[in-house]
Amino acid sequence: MLDYNQQDKWPNGFGELQSPIKIDTSKLSAKRGQLNYHVLEDYRLKQEIDDGTTIRLTGSGSAEIFGRNFEFQQAHFHSPSEHVINGRRCPLEIHMVHKNVIGQLCVVALLVEHGETPNAPFQKIIDNYEKGETEPVDLNIKDWAPWYPVGFHYLGSLTTPPLTEGVEWLLVSNPDFTVSDDQVEWFRKHFGKDDRKLQPLNGRSIEFYK
Amino acid sequence: MLDYNQQDKWPNGFGELQSPIKIDTSKLSAKRGQLNYHVLEDYRLKQEIDDGTTIRLTGSGSAEIFGRNFEFQQAHFHSPSEHVINGRRCPLEIHMVHKNVIGQLCVVALLVEHGETPNAPFQKIIDNYEKGETEPVDLNIKDWAPWYPVGFHYLGSLTTPPLTEGVEWLLVSNPDFTVSDDQVEWFRKHFGKDDRKLQPLNGRSIEFYK
Repeated sequence: MLDYNQQDKWPNGFGELQSPIKIDTSKLSAKRGQLNYHVLEDYRLKQEIDDGTTIRLTGSGSAEIFGRNFEFQQAHFHSPSEHVINGRRCPLEIHMVHKNVIGQLCVVALLVEHGETPNAPFQKIIDNYEKGETEPVDLNIKDWAPWYPVGFHYLGSLTTPPLTEGVEWLLVSNPDFTVSDDQVEWFRKHFGKDDRKLQPLNGRSIEFYK
Repeated sequence: MLDYNQQDKWPNGFGELQSPIKIDTSKLSAKRGQLNYHVLEDYRLKQEIDDGTTIRLTGSGSAEIFGRNFEFQQAHFHSPSEHVINGRRCPLEIHMVHKNVIGQLCVVALLVEHGETPNAPFQKIIDNYEKGETEPVDLNIKDWAPWYPVGFHYLGSLTTPPLTEGVEWLLVSNPDFTVSDDQVEWFRKHFGKDDRKLQPLNGRSIEFYK
């Protein structure tokens, strides 16, 4: 029985709902429809930050996500993708981090496939990094998420410390963004692989929109 | 720098966004309006469970809460109230626990004041307990939350183990529910005080609707 006089000894069960995860679509029932994600104010990328394991860019903009307003805060890159869909990793995963007024976190993750030509805005970010620019990149990225985003919706955590839980994930499997082999190679040369290990699902439900 | 080859050593920062908390309204700017909480399907209480520190009742019903649909899961009681508003505790706090399709948890907490007469549905729950009834109480509690709920909205945790974070709290300060001194005395005699210690706010924002 729970002892209210021994509260310091209560077990702490954190760490059971972590990200990233692998998803097997054959185990999910797909819904027809899009992820409930609507950009309200165009996203702009501002300051480019080298944090040692990735490039992070501060941002501004806002979106309505499953009925609530969120502020876009920052974007950063993981290579290869952290989330694994049907056993496959993408070469790149872009995390667009959002926060709302009570502090709920929502990451819109773009699962980026190979493309033949270099992605222009990503190249601008690379060139800016190479030049050691300290001026803001000031990049409008309203086209990165598609007009009809599909993919997955689930509850997990940040994938870097403090690994906070209660983070809502929208995994967008059809972004208007591809990346060339040269660009992936550049990223890996500078940052290595920055994908966190897969975490157990522990019974969580995943919504699948397609 | 984050070492992706030493992921097991990453610091784990859980435990910073816990519940209950104390709220000082003089530090908040109030919004005119109600908490975004709308019952869709009447709540019914079913099986009554003595869990040693409180009475818990399984339930059914559904609500729209800040733009998402939630299923009502269970209700239980804390005495005195766990949340403290302007230095004051209420004699009773009722937790109505909800879950949505991706597993987000939302607790609608009724901050219950003293009343002269015994509360009829709470008395039915007490009488059922005293009789050791194993039949469901089958109580419709659509009237417990007011038609225009006001109070507080913030992000915290469960107040009993596993103390899971990412729990959304709606603290309703004007429930259609009061409790008599005799009823509180009965509850304390059977369960003692079951309020978790106050937890640090750690910079969280609280929405205040009135």
